[in-house]
Amino acid sequence: MWPFTQSLSYLSELSGLSNVALRVHEDIPDMQLTRAADYAVRVMIHLAGLPPGVRASRGELARAAECPEQFLSKVLQSLTRAGLVVSHRGNTGGFELPQAHRGTSLLNVVQAIEGPVRLNLCLTSDHTCSRQGWCPAHDVWAEAQEAMLGVLQGVSIAHLATKVAARNGNGALSNTP
Amino acid sequence: MWPFTQSLSYLSELSGLSNVALRVHEDIPDMQLTRAADYAVRVMIHLAGLPPGVRASRGELARAAECPEQFLSKVLQSLTRAGLVVSHRGNTGGFELPQAHRGTSLLNVVQAIEGPVRLNLCLTSDHTCSRQGWCPAHDVWAEAQEAMLGVLQGVSIAHLATKVAARNGNGALSNTP
Repeated sequence: MWPFTQSLSYLSELSGLSNVALRVHEDIPDMQLTRAADYAVRVMIHLAGLPPGVRASRGELARAAECPEQFLSKVLQSLTRAGLVVSHRGNTGGFELPQAHRGTSLLNVVQAIEGPVRLNLCLTSDHTCSRQGWCPAHDVWAEAQEAMLGVLQGVSIAHLATKVAARNGNGALSNTP
Repeated sequence: MWPFTQSLSYLSELSGLSNVALRVHEDIPDMQLTRAADYAVRVMIHLAGLPPGVRASRGELARAAECPEQFLSKVLQSLTRAGLVVSHRGNTGGFELPQAHRGTSLLNVVQAIEGPVRLNLCLTSDHTCSRQGWCPAHDVWAEAQEAMLGVLQGVSIAHLATKVAARNGNGALSNTP
């Protein structure tokens, strides 16, 4: 049985190898936020800038986030599924950011789209690394991850919306841009 | 001409959309170091643990990094191309970490494989974001990136090799694990 397993593993490594080549030669960045997560943050900032109870249509959110509507649908689905945004149907429908979620962190929004952010495979809870216990790089990956996540955790969507409002010369929250 | 361009852009968004669905539903982590970069760091730590001038074969490095040899070839090519590692041919050949590069940072090694690490598209030098100048999230992405890269920049490969040697009960650098 094992030669078959080994051959599967070999094929998997070969496919990994072509990815590496692609990344190295075409310089496609890894370790980068997906466009979906970026758009989710844009949407949340826009919603947090609306007066409490006011809903925004998908079209309005697409314009605010500068994102194609069809693409944004999936993002909005994820935000709704994560409970961050409430979707109302009907003529007076639209998307609403409940008051209780205006203080949510940038990290929460990112993770609603990306899942848990883990800088390296060895930091995922469901992966056991054979080097665990002695690998000196493990603690550095953990520290770098903590530093990054700490910044994203420390900033709320409401705070970012307030900055937009202040820039627009509006002391109160504004529904622009 | 523009309907054609628009249709291309639409197709591109659709393909983006299927990626998002894949990520959201199958919970494949993004924003994660590639396996190639992780193996590169393992290789560099092993090489930095060898006495100056000592070379390691590809097989030795594959065992030390717990990585299939064929996969490691691409990683070693990238490290060699980046000038971090020197490859010697012939009977006494192998890979060597020059003394001058033992102090290289973890970040340098990662970027030799991944290219410049940019947490969000808006932080890449060749991308102009239409929201630049007012987007309140931009500074947070920049701060989070700086925090993460600062940690990786502040740790040298030689320091990590010393930690392995110390753990192996060897005050001097060791050629194990």
